Amino acid sequence: MIIYVLGILLAFEGVFLGLPALTAGLCGEKQLWLFLALALCCVAAGFLIALVRPKNRNIYARDGFVIVSLCWIVMSVFGALPFYIDGCIPHFIDALFESVSGFTTTGASILTNVEALPNSMLMWRSFTHWIGGMGVLVFIMAILPLSGASNMHIMRAESPGPSVSKLVPRVRKTALLLYLIYIGLTAAEFILLAAGEMNCFEAINISFATAGTGGFSVKNASMGCYSAYSQIVATVFMILFGVNFTSYFLLLSGKLKEAFNTEIRVYLILIAAAIGAITLNARHLFDTTGETLRHASFTVGSIITTTGFSTADFNLWPSLSKTVLVLLMFIGACAGSTGGGIKVSRMILLGKNMRNEFRVMLHPRQVRKVRMDGRQIESETIRTIHAFLFCYILICIVSLLIVSLDGFDLTTNFTSVAATLNNIGPGLNAVGPTENYALFSPLSKCVLIFDMLAGRLEIFPMILLFSPMTWKK
Amino acid sequence: MIIYVLGILLAFEGVFLGLPALTAGLCGEKQLWLFLALALCCVAAGFLIALVRPKNRNIYARDGFVIVSLCWIVMSVFGALPFYIDGCIPHFIDALFESVSGFTTTGASILTNVEALPNSMLMWRSFTHWIGGMGVLVFIMAILPLSGASNMHIMRAESPGPSVSKLVPRVRKTALLLYLIYIGLTAAEFILLAAGEMNCFEAINISFATAGTGGFSVKNASMGCYSAYSQIVATVFMILFGVNFTSYFLLLSGKLKEAFNTEIRVYLILIAAAIGAITLNARHLFDTTGETLRHASFTVGSIITTTGFSTADFNLWPSLSKTVLVLLMFIGACAGSTGGGIKVSRMILLGKNMRNEFRVMLHPRQVRKVRMDGRQIESETIRTIHAFLFCYILICIVSLLIVSLDGFDLTTNFTSVAATLNNIGPGLNAVGPTENYALFSPLSKCVLIFDMLAGRLEIFPMILLFSPMTWKK
Repeated sequence: MIIYVLGILLAFEGVFLGLPALTAGLCGEKQLWLFLALALCCVAAGFLIALVRPKNRNIYARDGFVIVSLCWIVMSVFGALPFYIDGCIPHFIDALFESVSGFTTTGASILTNVEALPNSMLMWRSFTHWIGGMGVLVFIMAILPLSGASNMHIMRAESPGPSVSKLVPRVRKTALLLYLIYIGLTAAEFILLAAGEMNCFEAINISFATAGTGGFSVKNASMGCYSAYSQIVATVFMILFGVNFTSYFLLLSGKLKEAFNTEIRVYLILIAAAIGAITLNARHLFDTTGETLRHASFTVGSIITTTGFSTADFNLWPSLSKTVLVLLMFIGACAGSTGGGIKVSRMILLGKNMRNEFRVMLHPRQVRKVRMDGRQIESETIRTIHAFLFCYILICIVSLLIVSLDGFDLTTNFTSVAATLNNIGPGLNAVGPTENYALFSPLSKCVLIFDMLAGRLEIFPMILLFSPMTWKK
Repeated sequence: MIIYVLGILLAFEGVFLGLPALTAGLCGEKQLWLFLALALCCVAAGFLIALVRPKNRNIYARDGFVIVSLCWIVMSVFGALPFYIDGCIPHFIDALFESVSGFTTTGASILTNVEALPNSMLMWRSFTHWIGGMGVLVFIMAILPLSGASNMHIMRAESPGPSVSKLVPRVRKTALLLYLIYIGLTAAEFILLAAGEMNCFEAINISFATAGTGGFSVKNASMGCYSAYSQIVATVFMILFGVNFTSYFLLLSGKLKEAFNTEIRVYLILIAAAIGAITLNARHLFDTTGETLRHASFTVGSIITTTGFSTADFNLWPSLSKTVLVLLMFIGACAGSTGGGIKVSRMILLGKNMRNEFRVMLHPRQVRKVRMDGRQIESETIRTIHAFLFCYILICIVSLLIVSLDGFDLTTNFTSVAATLNNIGPGLNAVGPTENYALFSPLSKCVLIFDMLAGRLEIFPMILLFSPMTWKK
């Protein structure tokens, strides 16, 4: 069954490769044949593999994790082939880094000069963001005839957030609705960007990268070279893509009160507070308060939604601003959005649970449950979030130790791990917004590749894939 | 009842002030009269307050937290008076910082030149470490006639570690036994140090500071100016004082197997691994491998037990070594020792619980409990540890934000919070082993004072003292 799903995935990746092929054709680039050949190979190989239909079509909890992590690894390896074969990224580990960074919507690059790349390659980079943002398996599920329970196991493993809420009773229809909202929002951003000074190609790329909260730009200055109008449009859409997609569905269904749930309110308050603090703290670096506010909003929106675009070199901002940004990296966006990080809802539940524990300490005989949005939260959910948090910290620690072998300063090491594990992109110091990840050793790059995948799949699938426990009978 | 205990505490502090008075007398220093006057005032005030005997002599869970946190604050304020009145520390907030740093066994100093202080002041500094190490209330409990349940609430709030194990059925006798072991070990270190090149005064001071895992030295070079023999003695005793004192009791009772429990084995493995890693990583900075090993052992022992002595400026060590040290800061010593940090046993339980969660994820129908040393761990304990961890992270975050207002680099800010919250002393960069905390603003110093107290009392008492929940009826 695992191999069957992998086959289907490969066929779909072949189809996806059609878009850069089309771009190459339109721009008259020689990469047309490369993309076409790769696309055909993928589709053919995928169909051949998927020909052997498995007898047992059920997917259990364990298989769900394994399928999702394997699919993402295979997808990334094949996604790296265009960069490597074309030669625009000469080392395979670098090409893989770029591809993983794309699919996991991280946006961390090893390229020093992005503008030297042909348009078709740039399109493929941005498109991987868009594919990875919503989750490719959620997409396949919308089409593939699987049982509801099997779908649920895959969706739970791939979707971000502590719990999966079904919009409608059928999982397949839920997946379809999510994709429709995703496409609609992306299209809206494209239209607004194209109405500004961007050409069509730039607008598509930036829309893809914003939608997936990725952060690959087509310019070396990221979003710094665009007008204030484009930057504001991007800011608004970054923040919109960091919202739980369920809320949009509720909004469209007219359930206004339910749409603005606790998570979204906290998310918006966090954004407002961070923008306020940074605007006050970094005011002296810019000419006007308006400009400070614009750069602060853009950067906060970019970091909390884990997009990673930049308009200013926030590495030069004062200490408090940088601290706020590093903290936002870990908090991340809302659950069920395309953003990464620990997620706002997990933070809220951890906080509520802590409060509850205080109450138990003061009045040992009173037992109360944690509640959110009127619903009682099961203690199992809280337990899983705590295991998630500790596992997160452990991965941070181990990654930090290995990366520190390269001998850079602590801030560089820490923020490179934070920026990849939380799928952001730029960190501070040597991995700041004007720098890139080319300086790391291959070993560190492998660790950061693992971190990006672990971050995107929310830790457990990647850990379980490499755990001997999973492979025991 | 709270005021009654505070009175007793004050009287005891007066008695403790006798030791520096004695030192001043022996050295013929003019501070004799200051210490004598303060001691008399404290004893008199304490007795006056304690004259009013409360009717209800029971202490509930809530009172336990409030008593402990208030006692520590009052004790620190009175402990700061000698420094302030004498004028050797002209600002009260600095004097309080030094006093809190002493009682919480942190060892972070705002003094630039320690050697300029009179001997009696140095003795008071070291003695606060020794008093704070084991917990002054545990000491009072050994003497005060309180009910067993009341004692337990106080002991639980003051003792480090996730759970309090009684050595013998009666709490008072347990407290007494702990103090006997403490005095015995301190005496042993004093004899071994005095056998070296140290004079009696130095040996007493260093023994006090090691026993409390404090870190105040009588020399500006910390332990760097002493012979290899003294450094090795200090290394061994730092590691010994980081061990759970229950193990010594078990060892003395001949229960060898129970004494070497999981926590101690993990603690020793961590120390060995860290020493190994740093020795390899920093080998090129020293002349011989032996010297590297000695400095690495001393520093690892000093940091994991949260003592904070130094023989070498580890701020100049390579990146990996520094990262290892920062991680050791957070892990800390064993529960039930005089050391700070999160504690090894909490880490083990968090890890075991995470493993358990993985198992549940893979096989949702199997329910298993976490076990350690053959005992099943109650889910309540695990829940409290998780709340502790999240609260710890929150305090780190808020402190970091406030301290970063001073505008130092991220490593300085982060390690200053880490080094005070975990009761270590020196951090990195501007608060490295050759630097001090004088450079911070009064606001930051207040935050760090709070962190030291919160760290020593393991978060909950300090948080609950300032929580409106506690003061609601």
